[in-house]
Amino acid sequence: MHKIPGFGFIGSQYVSKTAAQPVSEFEYDAPSMKTPVPGPKSKLSPPPHSLFISQNVGAVNFFCNYEESRGNYLVDADGNRMLDLYTQISSVPIGVSFPSLFSQTAFVNRPALGILPPENFPEKLIESLLSVAPAGMTRVQTMACGSCSNENAFKAMFIWYKIKERGASGPSAEEMSSCMINQGPGCPDLSILSFMGGFHGRTMGCLATTHSKVIHKLDIPSFDWPIAPFPKLQYPLEQFVRENAQEEARCLEEVEDLIVKWRQKGKPVAGIIVEPIQAEGGDNHASHDFFIKLRNIARKHGCAFHVDEVQTGGGTTGKFWAHEHWGTGDPADIVSFSKKMLTGGYYFKDELQPDKGYRIFNTWMGDPSKNVFLSEVLNVIRRENLLEEVTRSGKALLQGLYELQAQYPHLLSRARGLGTFCAIDARDDVTRDNLILKTRDKGVLLGGCGEMSIRFRPSLVFKEYHAHQFLNIFNDVLAEYK
Amino acid sequence: MHKIPGFGFIGSQYVSKTAAQPVSEFEYDAPSMKTPVPGPKSKLSPPPHSLFISQNVGAVNFFCNYEESRGNYLVDADGNRMLDLYTQISSVPIGVSFPSLFSQTAFVNRPALGILPPENFPEKLIESLLSVAPAGMTRVQTMACGSCSNENAFKAMFIWYKIKERGASGPSAEEMSSCMINQGPGCPDLSILSFMGGFHGRTMGCLATTHSKVIHKLDIPSFDWPIAPFPKLQYPLEQFVRENAQEEARCLEEVEDLIVKWRQKGKPVAGIIVEPIQAEGGDNHASHDFFIKLRNIARKHGCAFHVDEVQTGGGTTGKFWAHEHWGTGDPADIVSFSKKMLTGGYYFKDELQPDKGYRIFNTWMGDPSKNVFLSEVLNVIRRENLLEEVTRSGKALLQGLYELQAQYPHLLSRARGLGTFCAIDARDDVTRDNLILKTRDKGVLLGGCGEMSIRFRPSLVFKEYHAHQFLNIFNDVLAEYK
Repeated sequence: MHKIPGFGFIGSQYVSKTAAQPVSEFEYDAPSMKTPVPGPKSKLSPPPHSLFISQNVGAVNFFCNYEESRGNYLVDADGNRMLDLYTQISSVPIGVSFPSLFSQTAFVNRPALGILPPENFPEKLIESLLSVAPAGMTRVQTMACGSCSNENAFKAMFIWYKIKERGASGPSAEEMSSCMINQGPGCPDLSILSFMGGFHGRTMGCLATTHSKVIHKLDIPSFDWPIAPFPKLQYPLEQFVRENAQEEARCLEEVEDLIVKWRQKGKPVAGIIVEPIQAEGGDNHASHDFFIKLRNIARKHGCAFHVDEVQTGGGTTGKFWAHEHWGTGDPADIVSFSKKMLTGGYYFKDELQPDKGYRIFNTWMGDPSKNVFLSEVLNVIRRENLLEEVTRSGKALLQGLYELQAQYPHLLSRARGLGTFCAIDARDDVTRDNLILKTRDKGVLLGGCGEMSIRFRPSLVFKEYHAHQFLNIFNDVLAEYK
Repeated sequence: MHKIPGFGFIGSQYVSKTAAQPVSEFEYDAPSMKTPVPGPKSKLSPPPHSLFISQNVGAVNFFCNYEESRGNYLVDADGNRMLDLYTQISSVPIGVSFPSLFSQTAFVNRPALGILPPENFPEKLIESLLSVAPAGMTRVQTMACGSCSNENAFKAMFIWYKIKERGASGPSAEEMSSCMINQGPGCPDLSILSFMGGFHGRTMGCLATTHSKVIHKLDIPSFDWPIAPFPKLQYPLEQFVRENAQEEARCLEEVEDLIVKWRQKGKPVAGIIVEPIQAEGGDNHASHDFFIKLRNIARKHGCAFHVDEVQTGGGTTGKFWAHEHWGTGDPADIVSFSKKMLTGGYYFKDELQPDKGYRIFNTWMGDPSKNVFLSEVLNVIRRENLLEEVTRSGKALLQGLYELQAQYPHLLSRARGLGTFCAIDARDDVTRDNLILKTRDKGVLLGGCGEMSIRFRPSLVFKEYHAHQFLNIFNDVLAEYK
């Protein structure tokens, strides 16, 4: 247990050791201006700041040096020192770098990233999120969590769709006045197509695309948006090649029908959202071919294609993004992430960039301290070849699950997975819940998903020997199970 | 600049100094179980864990000791060591307490707070958020940001409204099946009443209650929810006592009319949301009497009363919550917060607690590292009597603004404020924007709000002498202004 500078660690309580120090002793005396604002170092033109176009920069005022900022004074990248009466849109409680908060500024001083980013933020993005950008995407927008990421990705698709529709002309006076009272044409009847069994979060936009469990949705108002069937594959896959191909074709046909139907209803589909593997909904897989064809349908009908990698991203399938398994250099228009990425956000193609600043915006827009951690996580993944390890331990895990389902066919079926992102079905929901609890009492934590599935979600340091540890314990549980 | 243990600070780049260490060297060999799970220390019954009912506990599996947890092994409060194949709903990238991430576990190990909270989390809540709970509220739900806080507060109000309507009976089969496809009766046509000029966030539920600027709302689908006028007070207040009272009465009458009208439309109002001072919308104030009467109207019609203190909370008005100025011991049913509180979330009354776990839920549900900071922020606020300081410096600021508007009546009007939460109007939007930029070039940061207002949002360490510093500089800008 390391100590945080400035904090003593007494029992489980942090107690400040720093003597009371009035603000006048650690901050500056007065403003001190060296250049007009934004000064040359705050300009977006030279690199690496020019690469910052990967974010929405329309609202950026200037870049900040949070390490030199103190108390009521914000220092910008050019060394201008300003008395701050706006304080990150009113979100700083006791001034910048208060002495008794330890002074690792990325952790203590949370900026309003959309308007006053730290001066090293473009570099931090390049060494963290942009270093693992999906194929065809050079832009990323950070957000605080997975739901906010999907909500804002939806907004980016709606904005893109309407800009495309308007062409060169701006919004009409009627659009501008009607949107203020939630009415069309300013708030248009656009929709997002999602899949039955999908899970994309629980805020009200996301929730309208989530269809995995009643408890998520009951009593919450929603939107009349189209919902397509997701393929229900039969296992083992090699025995049902023809049936599964037919099932996928049926679902894709339904997607096209729904797009046409909703256009006719006056609620055109601006985007399609899909998980590469439906996770919360039961670890439902589809073929790589299914996803490529789905993307093509989106393109054909002028819909954006949004791949939600909140649960599948970050290496757990043996590739950094699950969509890499599809083998295409153009997987999607938007890819959202969170969870293992430590920060939420979404990558997007140039054309999904809104035409103005402040259209995709909030106070924090993520948390740069999470990018510091992510940089180190990516270092470790590369240094220790963790994706290869995941592939290896995932094979051991899946092979073991195949053996267990052969041995206990009355209890288990449909073992499936990619990397360590594996699942197996129990005979029913009660058996599934019991197996999870009995395995936990022997020291292994598992999760459930869908109606009767067990999902495996180890982190990237899960090795082959951990897989065997689990399989031995699970075998004991199954052997004892009545 | 302190260094983080385990990180060297080279230029602006963090580089890990810890030698590569395989996971097998720092984690445990095998599971080790001492009690069934949850064990006695993970039970919710004895205090302080019993106080944890202040959160939604329906989904909590057990309490965790993250400091003893390593790599693939999660240790619970009873010392049970489990191989973790679920990893905070798949959100841990490289195991727990990876050595080259410095080991202040509250920062490194972000738990899925809703299911696997740290064992000291109830204590942390008590010493941070619960120590400043609004009158009449003993429960709090943390969230990642202000929008998520309001979205989930809306959901809590919808759930509360429907439970009240159903009485003893559970949801019908039709409700359970229809909600999965976004249709009624499972996804009911309930609404939230909001005010023109209000701002409550930008995710799709929140955005339907936000009505301050076109750029927030254009092109985003919305809900047909009622929008009431917010009082437009005339200044100086003492000259327009009768007119302002009439204006407030008119708005309250409209609120009641809208509630009745939307009930007749089949879209009953489940809750009313309001800011104690409309901030983004232009620092629009109303009397304390207005808010008490509004709360009474909500009660009369069976609507929950939600006070959004995201911008006004945390001490900036001279009281910890702006609603304390109303002088009632029962200000609201829900109070949401974010920004200065460092974490998002909302306080709520017992009856707003959902009937089941997992109804209000997401992976992270906040970030306990922010509570560590908040505890220290609250220590500082108390130790240094910062609320008194805010009252004192706010008076100096407002008095100075009165003098400036008297001196420059062609440029400024309507100075107003509570604590340092002050604003003043410029003659038009162009003048407002110019004044902000000219003041910035002399070293003071200000924000705009509404159509032509300047808003002042210093942090709590803003002293009287800072107010005078600003007033002198602003006076220079105004004197030079053509």
